[in-house]
Amino acid sequence: MEAALGRLLPAASVAPSRLHEAMRYATLEGGKRVRPLLAFAAGEVGGAPAERLELVGAAVEMIHAYSLVHDDLPCMDDDVLRRGKPTVHVAFDEATALLVGDALQSLAFQLLSEHTLADDPRAQLEMVRLLAIAAGSRGMAGGQQIDLDSTGKGLAVEALEHMHVHKTGALIRTAVLLGADCGTVSAEERFLLERYAKAIGLAFQVVDDVLDSEGSTATLGKTAGKDSNQGKATYVSLLGIARAKERAESLRGEAQGALAPLGERAARLRELADFIVLRKF
Amino acid sequence: MEAALGRLLPAASVAPSRLHEAMRYATLEGGKRVRPLLAFAAGEVGGAPAERLELVGAAVEMIHAYSLVHDDLPCMDDDVLRRGKPTVHVAFDEATALLVGDALQSLAFQLLSEHTLADDPRAQLEMVRLLAIAAGSRGMAGGQQIDLDSTGKGLAVEALEHMHVHKTGALIRTAVLLGADCGTVSAEERFLLERYAKAIGLAFQVVDDVLDSEGSTATLGKTAGKDSNQGKATYVSLLGIARAKERAESLRGEAQGALAPLGERAARLRELADFIVLRKF
Repeated sequence: MEAALGRLLPAASVAPSRLHEAMRYATLEGGKRVRPLLAFAAGEVGGAPAERLELVGAAVEMIHAYSLVHDDLPCMDDDVLRRGKPTVHVAFDEATALLVGDALQSLAFQLLSEHTLADDPRAQLEMVRLLAIAAGSRGMAGGQQIDLDSTGKGLAVEALEHMHVHKTGALIRTAVLLGADCGTVSAEERFLLERYAKAIGLAFQVVDDVLDSEGSTATLGKTAGKDSNQGKATYVSLLGIARAKERAESLRGEAQGALAPLGERAARLRELADFIVLRKF
Repeated sequence: MEAALGRLLPAASVAPSRLHEAMRYATLEGGKRVRPLLAFAAGEVGGAPAERLELVGAAVEMIHAYSLVHDDLPCMDDDVLRRGKPTVHVAFDEATALLVGDALQSLAFQLLSEHTLADDPRAQLEMVRLLAIAAGSRGMAGGQQIDLDSTGKGLAVEALEHMHVHKTGALIRTAVLLGADCGTVSAEERFLLERYAKAIGLAFQVVDDVLDSEGSTATLGKTAGKDSNQGKATYVSLLGIARAKERAESLRGEAQGALAPLGERAARLRELADFIVLRKF
């Protein structure tokens, strides 16, 4: 995946150099690559070719990387550390960081449209649509807005969950579905994969909140304790550490349950569910 | 086009309301709609159905609107007036303006992928790719970066032209090509349309610089004299008013020349070339 991202991003030698250098800085060297891993693992369920999964994984990771760059800007979370490095607007400047995010989003859609990703081109158009909806105002960007609107307001758990289903869940679900769509899965299998993805997307966020409260900035590679310091509701602030951990465990169970009928082909998705819930960073 | 944009943008009543309200504010009521007009006019050359042209016109206009919202942010041009109204970050806030741009870009790609725009779905994927490249680091966003990198540096005319070919030219060219692609044009006709679009895209910018230097803030609906005040090179600062006007006239001639073999089907493209060069706002 690292090699694919390095190849699919424009070289820093290509003009405009500063923008391309900053796009590479924002995307390469760092990140757990959870979304591409999920795309690859879901691809195994439907026997998808690796060259398709690379493109889908890269597209989803670029959308994710763009959202982090914009989220870290002074007008949003105003953060200086990400993936163990200075954030893009610190290492470069704010205007460049803005353009990095904008151009990474365009590049993601370019990747989904310029190579064959599905045997039926109509199905591939549907994949483009899936990513557009996941990234947009009723997906990830919408989740960010809900986050903005609710900061300092004291959310209930249901509202927090609603926010995360959009802010991080939509793209995680899309990573799984796009991976599956690179191969051949039945409607029933796709339904199970979506159930898995919904559970694991939420689990990811619950664990993030636990790590944010228990972990150190050094281990996380980003500023620890940020959300609670900014007066944002988290699973830990609403449920406490113990119940947040229980919730993550129960979501892991849900995710594993959805995979049961898929047998050995879902082995890597099972490993990823464990990784997402048991990770320490 | 206004009706189509109003219908294709999420209603302000749909959650997250503030984001959708701001997306509508950024896109509706205002703007010359030059890019959709070009898409419709190019569509007439290939006999494209109006319902396809509406979608393509809306997608291109949303990319344009997003670029204005981000361009007006404090970290970029820091402008308070656009299309005769307070800019989005003034009327709402910076974080919302950032998300408005992000979500408008996603929505543009959603529009290009969720309805039939070409008889061959492979051709439609190519349309998605065209827009992605035009918007991205080697198109519009790249042009913005070239603009950033060159502010205060004293460009030569060639470098100024290189910047505009990317910053505004790429999307104008794409508006024409996407309009044509909604119908049926020969390779030769498409080549002529591209020549027309390149000339008219540059002419558009030359005239913008003339108006920016001669017009008033009231007529323009945006801050007049901004570029020269920010130490940016313009056609007027480099060539003087008289030669800039000559350049616009010569580009109009080039554009009209490219259309000659297309006969009556290009009547509206001719009118638009005249409008773009002779406009007063």
